[in-house]
Amino acid sequence: MSDLPQFVKVHEEGPREGFQIEPGPIATARKVEFIEALAETGLMQIDCVSFVNAQKVPGMADAEEVIRSVRRKPGVRYTGLWLNTRGLMRALETPVDIVGAIRVTGSETFCIRNTGMNHAQTLDEQRRWLDIYRERKVPVEWGYVMTAFGCNYEGFISTDKVRTMVQQLLDLAAEAGASLKGVYLADTVGWGTPQAMERTIGAVRERWPDLPLALHLHDTRGTGLANAYAALKLGVAQFDSTCAGLGGCPFAGHQGAAGNICTEDFVFMCHEMGIKTGIDLEKLIECAHMAEDIVGHPLPGKVLRAGSLAHFRQKLAAWR
Amino acid sequence: MSDLPQFVKVHEEGPREGFQIEPGPIATARKVEFIEALAETGLMQIDCVSFVNAQKVPGMADAEEVIRSVRRKPGVRYTGLWLNTRGLMRALETPVDIVGAIRVTGSETFCIRNTGMNHAQTLDEQRRWLDIYRERKVPVEWGYVMTAFGCNYEGFISTDKVRTMVQQLLDLAAEAGASLKGVYLADTVGWGTPQAMERTIGAVRERWPDLPLALHLHDTRGTGLANAYAALKLGVAQFDSTCAGLGGCPFAGHQGAAGNICTEDFVFMCHEMGIKTGIDLEKLIECAHMAEDIVGHPLPGKVLRAGSLAHFRQKLAAWR
Repeated sequence: MSDLPQFVKVHEEGPREGFQIEPGPIATARKVEFIEALAETGLMQIDCVSFVNAQKVPGMADAEEVIRSVRRKPGVRYTGLWLNTRGLMRALETPVDIVGAIRVTGSETFCIRNTGMNHAQTLDEQRRWLDIYRERKVPVEWGYVMTAFGCNYEGFISTDKVRTMVQQLLDLAAEAGASLKGVYLADTVGWGTPQAMERTIGAVRERWPDLPLALHLHDTRGTGLANAYAALKLGVAQFDSTCAGLGGCPFAGHQGAAGNICTEDFVFMCHEMGIKTGIDLEKLIECAHMAEDIVGHPLPGKVLRAGSLAHFRQKLAAWR
Repeated sequence: MSDLPQFVKVHEEGPREGFQIEPGPIATARKVEFIEALAETGLMQIDCVSFVNAQKVPGMADAEEVIRSVRRKPGVRYTGLWLNTRGLMRALETPVDIVGAIRVTGSETFCIRNTGMNHAQTLDEQRRWLDIYRERKVPVEWGYVMTAFGCNYEGFISTDKVRTMVQQLLDLAAEAGASLKGVYLADTVGWGTPQAMERTIGAVRERWPDLPLALHLHDTRGTGLANAYAALKLGVAQFDSTCAGLGGCPFAGHQGAAGNICTEDFVFMCHEMGIKTGIDLEKLIECAHMAEDIVGHPLPGKVLRAGSLAHFRQKLAAWR
């Protein structure tokens, strides 16, 4: 008996979140090899590339080549990220699986620095995306609230602000004659705590009790899995994560860089608490070792070093 | 408003847990420097050394010298660990602050491998310790249940087993005419999950509603702070931890080594949720940098790399 979800959807963000911050260069073939290995674990969605300015993010200069090279496993979605219409148009020229997403940011300062657009401009941009989705017959899926828990420029984001953002996402979708599957709350820069999860998720649930919520959590200050656990207890059943904790780095040279919650650590925690994910944890741990080999330095995941408990249990079963 | 404790006691275990597994050698003077810096953070108890066999744990060969060299700050306890009567007798010859502790282990196989004694022998050994405490006028304080959440040799430890261990600790103390301050549940090898915390703590609380509980958590598989959060929600208000996550190591050469929960990450989480600890987080982060400098490689703590949120808040306050 448990008040936790029975099944959690895990979206792998490692190839995108991880490889975009690595000093690299990382060979395109190795990125493809990693994505193909991830697809063999049972993961159903893998964020592969960003369609962003290659001058600013040199690690993503081969985005088109990566997504065109991946040998696809049926049933798995190979997605990508864009921050503006130019990026979306680039994505549409590739075989990437387009997720009909719209994005707003709780902190307008962060929004301007991350995308070059203020909030009003962002809303207009989202309307353009919704037009494009309709033209290209891309179903509208998820709305995202970036920096939903805090921001280095604006501090804590109030629950009122988050509710305003959620309302705007729902309104944008409705204007376009669509409806959202649900809303992602993103702790983009690691201000979240378990208590903040409860407060913000609670405030959104109070207004929209039946709206599915999902989380994108960065583990900047070590509270990532605690935050995820607080959200699981509230019934949140969809999470982004990165294999081996890609995106973070224990080297002082990458001071402050921190990836998402680590996929295999999160999957380990879920499985040990009786939550199914459809993922083969042992295969995922092999992917985490591959990730370390590709980036050429240790990554922050823990289970990749300690191993799961499966081999202990097998030994125990053999003894009895 | 919160159902979390208002104040949490944090016991630093870094000098002992950390330096005993490092390949070293680490100069005695640097150990002393680290302990003295930790005492300036507001930490009230620092576990400094193990009185164990120097052949087996070469990193602790200078235990006596370390504890004799530390310049003491009034009000801070400088403690040590022993696993047998021989170690306790060594400790009593030094100025270490003796915590009148008694220890049993949920997994008898682990107990035999860790201490060379089976469970019955361990109980006798604890009686000898209690005699020594009485002779030396050391107050009896805490009982410990090691491997309370699982063990690589015996798998999960049942809540019945944990309750039997707690009963035996209480009986041992009562036989000696003493009473325990409370009981530590130790996740010695990282089998714990938040759900296991709830289950085991719940089972102990059901039998002994007023017995204070404390936790010693290893972060072997990344769930350490999630486990701590689950326990905080149940009112547990005393935790062991290690600065910078000492005891763990991101190098493949230390495969599987994993320290306790990281002190500054845990203190960060507590402070951000309004829980007081009496600790200066910024000074603690300086200690974490010192720890990395002393061991000569990256340590797993996150806040030591990302920093706290204090400087962002200061900037924000200055802008407004």
